Amino acid sequence: MSYAIQPRSRVKRLPERASYDKEVIYRILDEALICHVGFVVENQPFVIPTIHARRDDTLLLHGATVSRLLKHLQAGNPICVETTLLDGLVVARGVFHNSMNYRSVVLFGRGRLLTRAEEKYEALHVLTDRVFPGRWDDSRLPSAKELKGTSIIVLDIESASAKMRAGGPKDDAADYAGAWWAGVIPTEQKFLAPVKDEKLRAGIATPRYLKKYTR
Amino acid sequence: MSYAIQPRSRVKRLPERASYDKEVIYRILDEALICHVGFVVENQPFVIPTIHARRDDTLLLHGATVSRLLKHLQAGNPICVETTLLDGLVVARGVFHNSMNYRSVVLFGRGRLLTRAEEKYEALHVLTDRVFPGRWDDSRLPSAKELKGTSIIVLDIESASAKMRAGGPKDDAADYAGAWWAGVIPTEQKFLAPVKDEKLRAGIATPRYLKKYTR
Repeated sequence: MSYAIQPRSRVKRLPERASYDKEVIYRILDEALICHVGFVVENQPFVIPTIHARRDDTLLLHGATVSRLLKHLQAGNPICVETTLLDGLVVARGVFHNSMNYRSVVLFGRGRLLTRAEEKYEALHVLTDRVFPGRWDDSRLPSAKELKGTSIIVLDIESASAKMRAGGPKDDAADYAGAWWAGVIPTEQKFLAPVKDEKLRAGIATPRYLKKYTR
Repeated sequence: MSYAIQPRSRVKRLPERASYDKEVIYRILDEALICHVGFVVENQPFVIPTIHARRDDTLLLHGATVSRLLKHLQAGNPICVETTLLDGLVVARGVFHNSMNYRSVVLFGRGRLLTRAEEKYEALHVLTDRVFPGRWDDSRLPSAKELKGTSIIVLDIESASAKMRAGGPKDDAADYAGAWWAGVIPTEQKFLAPVKDEKLRAGIATPRYLKKYTR
């Protein structure tokens, strides 16, 4: 299944790196911990980082930081969300061919604010277990008051594209004979061993689902 | 030195995490490898990832991917740039208090396209040595034709804010007695050992400035 290509979602530059396949797009969205939400207020663009969770063809956005966004949403204005996973720094012989290896997604849609407490509760469950699988059942769950203080947006994805680069540098033919080093410096988001809160009650072991955290 | 606070750059949510100090803002911009550029075309927001380099109070954006942005710029429209460094996943006793440790910047300005070959050449020098200090002098430098094929934007930063969170979870007083684990999973962008291009000429050692790459 692919997203229909819209003028706004068509990758024009280096289209051979693009994909509109939902599976490809969703894998990137699901691996990324944060996304970058773009919206417009009176012709002024704003971009804010926030956490997200995908649920089928929608994106749940946790709205603690999105007060500017809320009014905007209620007016039915379009939103753009982008996320990028950096995989490597590509060092080419020629400066012009330096690049990065990455997997990115840009998607477009319109959002709505969740208003019913049960909807918010369920969305928080999805958001929590996406970051820490298993954590919901091992936490103090949200109170009615906390639910009131939480804003969650559901974005219906109308169109989306992925763009990716992998592999080594692509240099001009003549430059391969030169004495310049070329290659890739791989990079990854590394998660270190959990550090317990200094106020942690004695005798509580680190839960299995948080040890060796990875994505 | 701080940026003047404008309505668009004022951090409204959790203002105690905000800073308008140039040194703080620039340190984050300089550490981040990529940024997220937001712009508007006919009320449609776009967000694209790209590499950047700061030069004094301006941001150089490498425009290989920004063709949509170019026309837009020439019309003098405002741009928003955001970048976020993720430092940790904060695991609280209460779901509502889960958080992330991060350092982010949001900045606003207007851009212009560099048109003169010498300006572009110098900007590429800055962009290259920012990612790989020392690489410019050890590369095949750009040709006149390559310079023509490169788009570089200079963004004059008009206002900017940083927002940061660090430290452990902040739970409700009553929850500290509970049996839930709490703490932080630190995270960092990790750079691995350089992998040489499979077409690398024999006898070329990995340059010192690329070994143990870090930011």
